[in-house]
Amino acid sequence: MEAYSHDEVADGGYAVMPEAVVKPASAREISAIMKLADRERIPVTPRGAGSGLSCGAVPLYGGIVLSVERMNRIVEIDVRNMTITVEAGVVTNHINEVLEEYGLFYAGYPMSLETCFIGGNVAENAGGGKAVKYGVTGRYVQGLEAVLPDGAIVRIGGKRVKDVTGYNLLGLLVGSEGTLAVFTEVTLKLTALPKHKVTLLVLFPTVDEAIDAVPALMTETGVVPTAIEFMDRLSVQTACRYLNEHFPYEEAGAMLIIEIDGSGEEEVEAQYDAVGQVCLDRGALEVYVADNFTTSERVWRVRRNIAEAFKVSNPVQSLEDIVVPFAQIPQLIRVIEDLSRRHGLLIPSYGHAGDGNLHATPVKPAGMSLEEWEALLPRLLRELYAATAELGGTISGEHGIGSKRKAYMPLVLSPELLSLMKRVKDAFDPHHILNPGKIFP
Amino acid sequence: MEAYSHDEVADGGYAVMPEAVVKPASAREISAIMKLADRERIPVTPRGAGSGLSCGAVPLYGGIVLSVERMNRIVEIDVRNMTITVEAGVVTNHINEVLEEYGLFYAGYPMSLETCFIGGNVAENAGGGKAVKYGVTGRYVQGLEAVLPDGAIVRIGGKRVKDVTGYNLLGLLVGSEGTLAVFTEVTLKLTALPKHKVTLLVLFPTVDEAIDAVPALMTETGVVPTAIEFMDRLSVQTACRYLNEHFPYEEAGAMLIIEIDGSGEEEVEAQYDAVGQVCLDRGALEVYVADNFTTSERVWRVRRNIAEAFKVSNPVQSLEDIVVPFAQIPQLIRVIEDLSRRHGLLIPSYGHAGDGNLHATPVKPAGMSLEEWEALLPRLLRELYAATAELGGTISGEHGIGSKRKAYMPLVLSPELLSLMKRVKDAFDPHHILNPGKIFP
Repeated sequence: MEAYSHDEVADGGYAVMPEAVVKPASAREISAIMKLADRERIPVTPRGAGSGLSCGAVPLYGGIVLSVERMNRIVEIDVRNMTITVEAGVVTNHINEVLEEYGLFYAGYPMSLETCFIGGNVAENAGGGKAVKYGVTGRYVQGLEAVLPDGAIVRIGGKRVKDVTGYNLLGLLVGSEGTLAVFTEVTLKLTALPKHKVTLLVLFPTVDEAIDAVPALMTETGVVPTAIEFMDRLSVQTACRYLNEHFPYEEAGAMLIIEIDGSGEEEVEAQYDAVGQVCLDRGALEVYVADNFTTSERVWRVRRNIAEAFKVSNPVQSLEDIVVPFAQIPQLIRVIEDLSRRHGLLIPSYGHAGDGNLHATPVKPAGMSLEEWEALLPRLLRELYAATAELGGTISGEHGIGSKRKAYMPLVLSPELLSLMKRVKDAFDPHHILNPGKIFP
Repeated sequence: MEAYSHDEVADGGYAVMPEAVVKPASAREISAIMKLADRERIPVTPRGAGSGLSCGAVPLYGGIVLSVERMNRIVEIDVRNMTITVEAGVVTNHINEVLEEYGLFYAGYPMSLETCFIGGNVAENAGGGKAVKYGVTGRYVQGLEAVLPDGAIVRIGGKRVKDVTGYNLLGLLVGSEGTLAVFTEVTLKLTALPKHKVTLLVLFPTVDEAIDAVPALMTETGVVPTAIEFMDRLSVQTACRYLNEHFPYEEAGAMLIIEIDGSGEEEVEAQYDAVGQVCLDRGALEVYVADNFTTSERVWRVRRNIAEAFKVSNPVQSLEDIVVPFAQIPQLIRVIEDLSRRHGLLIPSYGHAGDGNLHATPVKPAGMSLEEWEALLPRLLRELYAATAELGGTISGEHGIGSKRKAYMPLVLSPELLSLMKRVKDAFDPHHILNPGKIFP
């Protein structure tokens, strides 16, 4: 059961052993489990692939871990309605593999897409690498089959693209971190597969120049790239070393990965020309164009592996997920640099700059004891979060609150909103058996 | 107060006189009103422009009508973050007027945009004429200031594009029909104004051919048009007569309006060529291309005025808002034709075919008494709704439930979901003072 005691959060201190792990194969089996648990008041923690980054799938009060790993069927591909219906335990990347022959794709792209489950993506409202243009998971969830805490199996939404029949429970369940219902089946809206796609790798001398280019390249060109990812020098170096990959990063203090897609080759070309020019105007050293799958995949592989590389090279760290209005990203970087200087530690940063979402990662300095680190980190985070809130931001853009960030919720949510959210929780789960101890401080 | 006793629903039988109409100018004033109403248990019905189509703004139990008409300030345009913040009483079309000089636009486009308020659009999660490509109102609501039933003023979200800090209250409030909170300020995500736009008016000999072309023109070309609007012959004739407009509709049994936009002229041209060709392959008589504002506006004006034209020419009618998965639109049309034949009445149909959302409008035959009509209509609607549900659809795509459709909710929502929605209502409004009598049967 050890494997079910934690997710991908580096700090082992967050792990809690389950008392039982169950692997149901259907909504009916989950319904039976929930009825028993509700009657006997046993905590149930739903679990996807365990690739979460907020301890959302950790059974904080023991009880049952309910893994959907056996529920991995593609239920239906409806080409004419441009939807796919899958069970919650399907690996996200598998969805696009099965869709390719139909010229369709699902636009969600979490960095962990090769391992994470779609059910977990829905539970966390996962963001990822295509959100600048395509938005996050929630935009594509048209239908859900779910089991409520009392065991009722409900179907919400379906294949229709519009629906205002009563409250938007679909929108409420997306991102509810397994605290309101267990998802069993998801119906996703699909998009026509873009025929052309180009990845730019843009090198900047410093972080400031890279970050300043981010809002500019959108507002000055009118182009909405699929992705605008930011990586500072340390992030690139660490991931390259981990992958034994070589990037032309010697002189570069920071890099942007910019992806542009569209239906016409010339359209995409005109767009990346315009975007590349803005980057050069803003001080870029070089704009590399990756217009084939292999080169593009090399670039993205580095980006996708940063978190894992840091975990291996600096196991004592805290992967953060702060988000600000995207034009405030340069100010946020100054805040991080200032914190880094004042507290004498490295805070490498990377992430979804086009969404204003930065994975700043404070790392324990080699000379600092674990006790000192554990005393420092909450203070540091409190400062970081308060400054983020000042800039109109919040403490999580896509990883969720789980148990990792719950103590900080009052920094960004008023008592009225927290109390409202608690009443919503009560409305779904009056006995608090579903994923207890998460979200709320 | 008579003007505040109804919305745009044709049937005067739904009107209820308020006991008082208040026109606050700020969130603080609304807070004071709500505190009083909550203490004294006085029903409060929030009201936008009164352009709704489900009696959502009708004060079913009397009490206070709270009109936001004086709250019509543009609070802030943030060009670098691509957001606009407006008060709830701003006319939707005004938003794009003030944005034009910045090369930005708000992608919501309800048919009543010249009169409706943005606050009402948020309350109903309004759809409209650009939803095929751009989605509905909810996709653009990034922040809300709202007053809860107990008078608390809350701010939810803001200018950040991603946020998973606790439950998605924003998503829950959008489309809640004024039953959970009073909206005072809205922050909307903006989009770069597309540089090129073309409107196609496509004539088909019959309804069947027009409707069959709808899913095909998307799936066969991979193009996502901004709009795919459908109008049958009767709808076009009625609107043209009302506007004293002339359309080349003599031979046409039905028409599609297809709008395509993009950043490049050639891209848009290639797309409308491909789409036009699919229409011709599917039996279109003619494809007219309107590539300038004046001609395009002539076409759209006819479409926007259908509802009003029917109200004038056939005041005894029921404007419906059914929605199905869009590939099921041809089957839905057969259902409507069959109902029309069996019950001996006209059911002209028009609407957002690209979203699967049809405004079928049963009209009282000239020879039928009002008593007969009132006995027939609920039976007819029950049949129509049941068939819609059969096809994977529901009873409202964008107009909402209000009091007009609440009796039919059990046809499309299970007892478990209805009960869950009621508990959510209780969580926000334990004394049921906010817009009582709506949504729930």
